[in-house]
Formats: sequence, structure tokens, C-alpha cells
Amino acid sequence: MAQDHQPQNLSDQPSSGKPLRIGLAGLGTVGAGMIRLLDTNADLIRARSGRELRIVAVSARDRAKDRGVDLSRFAWEDDMTVLAARSDVDVVVELVGGSDGPALVLARNTIAAGKGLVTANKAMIAHHGMELAKAAEAAPAQLKFEAAVAGGIPVVKGLREGTAANAIERIYGILNGTSNYILSTMEATGADFADVLAEAQAKGYAEADPTFDVEGIDAAHKLSILSGIAFGACIDFDSVDCEGIACVRAADIAQADTLGYVIRLIGMADVEIGADGTQRLLQRVKPCLVPKLHPLAHVTGATNAVVAEGNFSGRLLFQGAGAGDGPTASAVVADLIDIARGETSAPFSVPVSEMIPMPPAGSGNRAGRNYLRFTVTDRPGVLAEITAAMRDADVSIESLIQQGAAAAGGEVLVAMVAHEGPERNIAHALELLDASPNFTAAPLVMQIISG
Amino acid sequence: MAQDHQPQNLSDQPSSGKPLRIGLAGLGTVGAGMIRLLDTNADLIRARSGRELRIVAVSARDRAKDRGVDLSRFAWEDDMTVLAARSDVDVVVELVGGSDGPALVLARNTIAAGKGLVTANKAMIAHHGMELAKAAEAAPAQLKFEAAVAGGIPVVKGLREGTAANAIERIYGILNGTSNYILSTMEATGADFADVLAEAQAKGYAEADPTFDVEGIDAAHKLSILSGIAFGACIDFDSVDCEGIACVRAADIAQADTLGYVIRLIGMADVEIGADGTQRLLQRVKPCLVPKLHPLAHVTGATNAVVAEGNFSGRLLFQGAGAGDGPTASAVVADLIDIARGETSAPFSVPVSEMIPMPPAGSGNRAGRNYLRFTVTDRPGVLAEITAAMRDADVSIESLIQQGAAAAGGEVLVAMVAHEGPERNIAHALELLDASPNFTAAPLVMQIISG
Repeated sequence: MAQDHQPQNLSDQPSSGKPLRIGLAGLGTVGAGMIRLLDTNADLIRARSGRELRIVAVSARDRAKDRGVDLSRFAWEDDMTVLAARSDVDVVVELVGGSDGPALVLARNTIAAGKGLVTANKAMIAHHGMELAKAAEAAPAQLKFEAAVAGGIPVVKGLREGTAANAIERIYGILNGTSNYILSTMEATGADFADVLAEAQAKGYAEADPTFDVEGIDAAHKLSILSGIAFGACIDFDSVDCEGIACVRAADIAQADTLGYVIRLIGMADVEIGADGTQRLLQRVKPCLVPKLHPLAHVTGATNAVVAEGNFSGRLLFQGAGAGDGPTASAVVADLIDIARGETSAPFSVPVSEMIPMPPAGSGNRAGRNYLRFTVTDRPGVLAEITAAMRDADVSIESLIQQGAAAAGGEVLVAMVAHEGPERNIAHALELLDASPNFTAAPLVMQIISG
Repeated sequence: MAQDHQPQNLSDQPSSGKPLRIGLAGLGTVGAGMIRLLDTNADLIRARSGRELRIVAVSARDRAKDRGVDLSRFAWEDDMTVLAARSDVDVVVELVGGSDGPALVLARNTIAAGKGLVTANKAMIAHHGMELAKAAEAAPAQLKFEAAVAGGIPVVKGLREGTAANAIERIYGILNGTSNYILSTMEATGADFADVLAEAQAKGYAEADPTFDVEGIDAAHKLSILSGIAFGACIDFDSVDCEGIACVRAADIAQADTLGYVIRLIGMADVEIGADGTQRLLQRVKPCLVPKLHPLAHVTGATNAVVAEGNFSGRLLFQGAGAGDGPTASAVVADLIDIARGETSAPFSVPVSEMIPMPPAGSGNRAGRNYLRFTVTDRPGVLAEITAAMRDADVSIESLIQQGAAAAGGEVLVAMVAHEGPERNIAHALELLDASPNFTAAPLVMQIISG
């Protein structure tokens, strides 16, 4: 039986032409999309894979639900975790979601059985990717998760393989379509966050509970996975410095526009090498100012885009649909084709044993240009208080705009751009202002991405 | 010995850890860049490949020339075609160029010896790719050419693997950095083609003989390769409908700007399916109008960018440096890492035996919006003559701008946008005007890319 399901074995290489038999867990929009894709593109996939990709068994919560695809041709399992044990299944596709629970049990069972696992589950890979990859390397079995990052964009492949010759100096990008839709709609309409979110929810572009998207958690899941591949760093989701977009106001977008920028939720990671040679991993997901001439400034709506800067390749950009049943199914099936073709290599590009545990880098060491916004009560002396704190913390102000209140005593917005300088100075300035009774909301600091 | 050099063999898979021994032909900037890359990134490449990538022998025309890298550690061959026969070489890297001649001999010898060939030679792949791929599949040996298309951008991999689940509906993009540099510089400065070309030549951005770049031939080489991968079409470079940028005037760029477009040299390919089911391949390289909101409108300088539209993935964009020693070396070494990892699959995604010979599609069937520009002698009745020809050929005019001459009897520019309609009607209109004595230059027709 081992001969029968291990795609690593030469007897299962393309030339043999045996079907790759798939167990599919999860029949939501992506699962149904994958079935439609395999039906629609069957001939070309067989030509490209050298063999048929054949779903043999499926599992989901509700058997009766109409999903618009014919399921009668597949075996049904009520318990998805059983799919891994079926002797007629070579590879399991997990489209259930959730970092733990049945998805994780299924993943562990599949790999333990020496079978390939293809998943779109970013939370599971962000939390348990190292464990699963280690098990997969030992089995050996394949673990692939292109669909977990940036939907239909082949960026996992781009980093694992396309830029494999490079030391990656930095990765950054737009990793959450919902947040980008909201920010670019705010930009186009001048509306405030809450209104655009409500509209996006009404249209089905945002979840009823939008926390994962608008708080940056979804982007952080994806970023931590990309960091593992790009830098060979042990995945460390918990250390992602994460801030959402709820703090961004229409007025910030207007100010940014005046200054020549747009605001995007950017996931960014790089490695800092200390004097003692220790590698520290900086991972942050934050709203940032992006120069209008930068390619990411033109990424609007639910589109995702990832920039990778290699020491020989220079700056590469991968852009496309970050979600949706078609794009996500496209990524899942690309992984299946890789398996069918006999591709084997470490899930995170280097074996888990060679991945490096990197402590998180303190952001205070970073130097950069930053946008700072204060909302204050319209009262004499407030501007002096802010500018004094900047001076005392050695933050040099490049430009400052004060937007007057509609009425005396109302809220005033003070926005400034600080010259390039250490982030710790800005943090210090905010500490100095912390006790002030004059602020109507917490100050907002946004990094300015360099062109 | 067969065991010794065939990466297809499991004994040479990553776990075995044997070095992949490379013979390098060509020590120009890319060859020297590749040596620097392998030196600089040796440790991470070993970790990612599971084995060392080790250059053992090199060949170039001039042994004495200083290339800034230490060649004394490598064996030297005066005759590059001999590299393939060396028993200590597993893979040959060909960076010599030229569609025929020694590069082709070396490629044939390498594949015939059952060894992998990695090349950056777009002309050779465009002209002889089918023959070489067929030989490679029979050997078996690997044939890889990521660096032949769009420099450091992993777009060959993106199409072969990343979008492998999709029927590709269309590919198009900016495939020649020199042309894009010239067009975007014309756009930024208002200068005319000849002046910008001369400046680019002085700066070393354009060759002394710029024909391949500005006439679209280089882009056509790349496009024909991408067509093979994307559509499974037999490579057919000779049928690329190719037009360069020398015909684009500063005034066209200004008019396009007024209308909301920029001008880019676009390579574009898709497949037309006739009533009888015959697949016909449309391949064209032409200056086009690109809407300012389209991602390609923001691609300036020597950057390349490729859009692939999949039937499930939707629109994907791959962007980066299209040339240069670092980016090109990055692509070459990515191919070597794939080989070192034991990746095997057909060079053009499907085996040559399954690639389809597609006759060229006649462009007349196409419908689209087009920009037309006439330069005419300032004389009464010329505008009536042009608009009558449009009417008689059933070309509907959406907008028209006539730019007055500096002096009576001077040259006048008439630019118009035609409503969506068949290209054959436009061709007909131009035929009707062909005999007119009023034109000071051939009319220019540019397709408007849809957003």
C-alpha cells in the first residue's frame, strides 16, 4: 500500500499515469469551486500533470445541502478525519479552516499515513506549520499550502522556488482583501471606516464578525507563513506586531493624499542582524502610508499584492485576487498538480531542522519616516504641548498640518510627518504626551513605506 | 556514469546531498553575476537545494579578460561545446546567446548526454525550443529557461506551475525593458523617440544596434515562449505580429494622456476557437494605449510585467526587473535549484507530443477600441477625406482631436478613438486612404487595452 499512495515514489511519477486520488474535506464555496475547476479544466490538468486528478471521497458537515455541484459520484464520509485512512485516497485536501479541531486532526492523520496534504488553512499553518512540516519531512509526505497566502497568487511558490537563489531582504504587501477594500473605498468616497465596513458587510465583502480581517490577524497569519519561507525563520505568529485599520479616519486618508500618499494595511517582515550575529525577526501588520508612485498604491479593492526584495533579483511584485472560490481553488489545484508531477521539497523551502528560531526584533531600533496624527480638544497651548514633546524626544518634524475645528472647543486634527529617525523616539514622544488631558483619541502613528 | 549525472534519479535527490556540478558557458555580465550569486548566497542555496551548486568548468571567448570574479578555481574549456561531454558536469548553463551557432550545438550536446540545460537564451528557445524540449523529454534531461523571459521575474514558473490549474484566457505584458524605458521617458519628458533613444544608448540602457529591442523582436521571442506554456501551443515565433515603437511620437503620448491613457509596448497572446473547433493563436507585439488605472500603466523604466488571466485564478500580475546581471542570474540559479531539488516536468508544462500546432489568427476578426493617428498636410478637405473613409469602412468615431499646424501648409495631427468594432474595418479605412497624397507619414493604429 505504501507504493500506492506515495507520490515520492518513482512508480507514481507522471509517466506512470495513475490517477492522483483525492479526499476532499470541506465543501464550502472553495470546495465547490475546486470540484467545478477539476470538472471544467480536466483535460488540460491531465495533460499538465501527466495523470488525472480524481476526487474519490468528500466530507462536510451537512450532506444534504445543495452546493451546485454533483456529489453523488464521490464517496461520502461523515467524519472528515477518516479521509486520511481510506486506502483509495492518495492526497487529502483540507478546506475546513480553524487552526485546531478537526482540521488539525485530519492534517496530522494524513501526514502520519504518508499521504500528501494540501490546505488553504492559514491559521493552522501559522500555528502548527512547523509541527506539520516536520512530520511531513519525516513521513515523507507532502505538505502544501499555496492557497493559505494571498488566494490565487502563486506567492508561496514564488518565494519557495522563484526567488530561491536570493537572500530575501524584505517582504511586504497587501495581504487582506477586506481591509484593502475598506481602505480603498474610504479613499474613493471620503467615507469613514464604520460606514464603509457596514456597507461591505451588507454586500458580503466583509464577515459579520470582521475582527480577523480588520484587526490584521488574517494578514498576520499569512505574513508569519511568508516569513518562514523567505527567511528560513521558525514560524512565529505570536510575535507579529499587529494593528488593524479601525483607527484610520477619513481625515487621515485626506491628509495622506495631500502629502502624496495612500493608506494601505501592510504586512512587512525582515531580519535584523545584531552585533553578536543574532538574527531577529521583525514582523508587523499595520496601516502605512504608501507613496502614490509605489506599485502597492495602485492596488485597490479586494486585490492582494506581495513584494519580495531579493539581494540579486531586486524587487519583485506578485499581484492578484486574494480570495474567492475560483482563485483559491486555482491555488489548491496548483499544489495538487505539483504533487501529481512528483515535485518534492521542504514545505518551507529549507527543512524544519534548518529553520532558525529568531527572537522578535524590537521596533525601537528601526529608523524610518512616520506620519503622526493627534486629535485634540481645540484649546490654546495644545500644539505647543505636542511640538514640545517632539522636541524633547528628538523627533524632527518635516511637515505639520492643523485642521481647524468646526466650532470652538471642538475636535482638532493635528497631522505631521516626522523626518527619518528612530521609532523609539516617537514612542518616547507619545509617552511624554500620555498624561495629557487634551487628546480626544489615542494618537495614530503610521510608517511611511519607502518608494 | 548515468547514475552520476541524472537528477531524475532518486539517488540524486536532495537527501543524497551530492553537489550539483555545473558547466558554465558564457562569462559576460550575467555569467559573472551568476558566479557572484553562487558565492554570496552559497549557504542558503545549499540549505534550500539540499546540496551544493558547484561550478566546475567554464568557457568563454576570452580567457584573459578581467571579469571581477576569480575563475582560477574552475576548469577552463576553450570550446564551450565540450562542456557537455565532461564527466564532472551534471548540468550546463548556457549564457552565450544567439539562436543558432555554438549555443545551439552546446544545448543539443548537453541534452543528448542526458544532462540538464539551463539557458537565458530567448532567441534559441523561440526558434528551437520545441526541438530541444522534445529531445529533453526523450533523454530524459531537464531543459529550463526562466531567465529567457522577463529577467528575474519567475513568470515561466508562474505559468508552468503557479497557474497550472487554469485555462489561460490571455497573457499580455511589458516584455522589453529598453522599449519601456524609452516610452516612459518620452512620457515623463515630452521628448521624441529619437532623442530618448540616443540618450538611452549614451547611458548604456540601449544597445548600439537597438533593433531587437525597439522593433519588438526581443518581446516577440519572449511572447512566443509564454504562448507555448500558457496555451500548450507549438511555439511559433514567425507568426508574431510585431511592430516597434519608433512610430510613436511625443504627440501621441500627449494625446493618449489627454484621453486617460499611457502608451506601452505590449506583447499579447490568446487563442481563438473557430466554428470548426480549430484553435488559432493570436500573438502580437505592438504599442498600445493602456488606461491609467491599469497596473501596467504604472510600470515605468526598464521594469517588466506580465499579466496572465486564468479562468479560475482571474487576473495575475508578475512584475520586476526584466534584465540586468543580478535578476537574470537569480532566474538562472532558481532553475538550477529546481534541478537540484529533483523537480521534473515538461519544459513547456505539457509534453511536446501534446502541444498543438495552432495556425495564426487573423487579426481582422478581433473587435476592440483603437486609437488612430494621421499626420496630414494642412490643406482644406483632409479631415473630410479621413472621416468619409471611416464612414465608408463602418468605423464609428468616439472622439477626435485635430492639432493645428504651426504654420499654414505645415503638418497637422489628427488623432481619434474609434468605438469598439472589428479591426478589419479599420484596415479597410486605411486602404481607402492609402492613395491619398495628403499624409505626411503612415497612419498609426494602436489598440486600447481594456481595463
